[in-house]
Amino acid sequence: MDYPIWHPCSQMKDHEVYPIIHIKKAKGVYLYDEKGNSYIDGISSWWVNLFGHSNKRLNNAIKKQLEVLEQVIFAGFTHDRALELSQRLLKIVPKNLKKIFFAEIGSSAVEISLKLSHHYFKNIGIKGKNKFVYLENGYHGETLGALSVMGEPLYKNAYEDILIKNIMVEFPNCYRCPFGKTRNNCDVECFSFMEKTLSSKADCVAGVIVEPLVQFAGGFKMYPSKYLSKLRELTKKLNIHLILDEIATGFGRTGTMFALEQAQIEPDFLCLSKGITSGYLPLSVVLTTDEIYNAFYDDYSKGKNFLHSHSYDGNALACACACETLNIFEDENVLENNKKKYTLMRQLIENYFKDFDFVGEIRHTGFISAIEFVKDKYTKMPIDSSIRFGFKIYRKALEKGVLLRNLGDLIYFLPPYVIDNSQIEQLVESAYFATKEVIDENFC
Amino acid sequence: MDYPIWHPCSQMKDHEVYPIIHIKKAKGVYLYDEKGNSYIDGISSWWVNLFGHSNKRLNNAIKKQLEVLEQVIFAGFTHDRALELSQRLLKIVPKNLKKIFFAEIGSSAVEISLKLSHHYFKNIGIKGKNKFVYLENGYHGETLGALSVMGEPLYKNAYEDILIKNIMVEFPNCYRCPFGKTRNNCDVECFSFMEKTLSSKADCVAGVIVEPLVQFAGGFKMYPSKYLSKLRELTKKLNIHLILDEIATGFGRTGTMFALEQAQIEPDFLCLSKGITSGYLPLSVVLTTDEIYNAFYDDYSKGKNFLHSHSYDGNALACACACETLNIFEDENVLENNKKKYTLMRQLIENYFKDFDFVGEIRHTGFISAIEFVKDKYTKMPIDSSIRFGFKIYRKALEKGVLLRNLGDLIYFLPPYVIDNSQIEQLVESAYFATKEVIDENFC
Ligand SMILES: Cc1ncc(COP(=O)(O)O)c(C=O)c1O
Ligand SMILES: Cc1ncc(COP(=O)(O)O)c(C=O)c1O
Repeated sequence: MDYPIWHPCSQMKDHEVYPIIHIKKAKGVYLYDEKGNSYIDGISSWWVNLFGHSNKRLNNAIKKQLEVLEQVIFAGFTHDRALELSQRLLKIVPKNLKKIFFAEIGSSAVEISLKLSHHYFKNIGIKGKNKFVYLENGYHGETLGALSVMGEPLYKNAYEDILIKNIMVEFPNCYRCPFGKTRNNCDVECFSFMEKTLSSKADCVAGVIVEPLVQFAGGFKMYPSKYLSKLRELTKKLNIHLILDEIATGFGRTGTMFALEQAQIEPDFLCLSKGITSGYLPLSVVLTTDEIYNAFYDDYSKGKNFLHSHSYDGNALACACACETLNIFEDENVLENNKKKYTLMRQLIENYFKDFDFVGEIRHTGFISAIEFVKDKYTKMPIDSSIRFGFKIYRKALEKGVLLRNLGDLIYFLPPYVIDNSQIEQLVESAYFATKEVIDENFC
Repeated sequence: MDYPIWHPCSQMKDHEVYPIIHIKKAKGVYLYDEKGNSYIDGISSWWVNLFGHSNKRLNNAIKKQLEVLEQVIFAGFTHDRALELSQRLLKIVPKNLKKIFFAEIGSSAVEISLKLSHHYFKNIGIKGKNKFVYLENGYHGETLGALSVMGEPLYKNAYEDILIKNIMVEFPNCYRCPFGKTRNNCDVECFSFMEKTLSSKADCVAGVIVEPLVQFAGGFKMYPSKYLSKLRELTKKLNIHLILDEIATGFGRTGTMFALEQAQIEPDFLCLSKGITSGYLPLSVVLTTDEIYNAFYDDYSKGKNFLHSHSYDGNALACACACETLNIFEDENVLENNKKKYTLMRQLIENYFKDFDFVGEIRHTGFISAIEFVKDKYTKMPIDSSIRFGFKIYRKALEKGVLLRNLGDLIYFLPPYVIDNSQIEQLVESAYFATKEVIDENFC
């Protein structure tokens, strides 16, 4: 039989040259393939894994839950693990967030927020709030609703004819600041773009959705927390919802449990997923306020309820895994320990990469470091895309036992939190040699 | 703390009168609540469970997988359980289906089909195929793309302003046939609605999406397989994709492994989810043809690839569960054994319910039976909706230890396949007494 799987986010023809890697097992930060190769999972298997693969505590939590309850319809019914998770999450998010809606995937959490935001205004009698504002380079998933707030044309272009139109705003482009500022001397002048759009369109805008602090899929663009505090202030003033998509930033990745802590803001909607189960099982949630909740709370006959559902909402196995994730955070002083680890990772990256001519910017937030390569560090001109520079580093790094997925000509380091110092060294060193070889082979 | 969870598909205010039921554990067909009550799960926890809760074989399959691999990035990487599942699924679906794309939830499988269908025509140079045709009463999920092919206004009305417009066609309404036919003497005259729409709009229609044989959420509307064979023939002729949503019908529910077998048709896209993991974990797949796949297969630089992805695509725990589900089907002669069980269930339902004045129609397909209640069986006039007749039966049945969720004034029987004869009797008998009491309390 021909190879049967159509893999996500891939040009399958690439695999004529680079065969799909067949993983046989995984343990801790390592993936093991059928040929006996091992790879450090330097991207936490698409930003989901926190505490390593086949983690004993998480395995046990699932095994225990299997004996009790795996899944029950979540309309009209609840269970211990969903309740425990809800109560514990509500304790660690901003105090204005009081209710939690369960789903399975990140995209769906985003869709739920968009639907709730629009529907809320309808329910309270405000008409015409039919648009959402999103940032250039933003990524919030690829179902068609999520795609309608996609700021990265690559994922969206083919579908323009089947998407509703929302409103895109210039992103805080710190590396190529249109105001000529740098990260150290700016006053988020770029917020003026957002201000202009929101002020002129407040009547038709229900909500603004952003990834706080770091735009992940859009190229690990990092921006100051001040942008977020300004955004919160303005949206409040204009009666527009603030939807924070912490699907990728949440659960410690940016250094704090949630990125919003660094801006000290309270959103109207908070979307979480990915790390919520330590990378074990699909689960997502939307947290929101009593004000939103109450606008849907009425006699059944009024027809104000929120009907959205998915079959596996509140899956008990995933909830058990999420509860154990919070246990590990508490018991193992994770956020504090991560600091030492990512400080080392940053130092190593800076040391190894600083002398390459092709390094445009090295940026860090929490346990994420990214290197954007350019043709010329002074003009910041990109490398000819036909070279597939970043992709080649990714392939070379794999040969060296390190999984570092590129985004265009950017590579990033986003390992599971259980990585140890020597593994961090191996990760950065392999990335360095992979980069060096790609440069030598393509430019010398 | 106030109750923290916002449950799906609910008016939360209803729970002031009917508290959320707190399930402590589940085993086989039984759910057990915190007060010591037990309930037969007569709806398989939203149509997902096949082999009972906390099933030993499925539990063991997950435990075994936990020791090996729980999740790995699915772009560029694969693993044993995804491969095994793909190969085995491809053996039991129509032969034209050759490739399998993984996702996590049903809605997302639907979104993927819509995107692929539209994108395919773009990739082969056919422009303008920007619309999808769907059936009145159809349900394909509630993310905004899936909602754009929703045929049930209840779920859709609040979002009309943020949805793209697609094309709805009158459904095969066998109980209230507009041609005055009955199930036994019809030649699917109602297909003329579809024929008219497709013939006049073929240039702008990429695909038609339907739930084959049974429209689940739209009220367990059941229709003849001949409708599907006609639809396949016509869509082929007009160069329109046929998307079969077997998310609810799949895995034996309609009597055959897939409903499409009863119409002997080959779709362009087949969406599966729900029962695929026996109701344990979220997993969905889209199966499609080489023709579709090849239209995306080209050099990377051509930009023809399908970029869609979700974080947990190909989740190894869910795939292990799905493989074990197929093992159980093979080892335990499930489809054959189900026949005896649902024959008994049908007989009991007919016997118990035939004399009620309010029974409009009792319909059966495979292991699904549904009873539509009406005010008058001759005029088929519905019962005044403010009575919430069906909802009251649902509540009464719960008191009798049976979970039977209503859809408006319809109740349905859709138990796990492991239900035994005495449990079937208990299920139907409790439904009968619940119905009798609701009738006595509201109409006498
Ligand atoms: C026929 C059908 N399609 C799609 C869906 C959506 O699947 P999910 O709820 O997993 O998003 C459902 C779910 O009930 C369904 O019954
Ligand atoms: C910020 C952000 N939002 C949303 C999503 C979508 O989540 P999912 O892939 O689970 O649908 C992602 C996934 O990569 C993400 O990074």
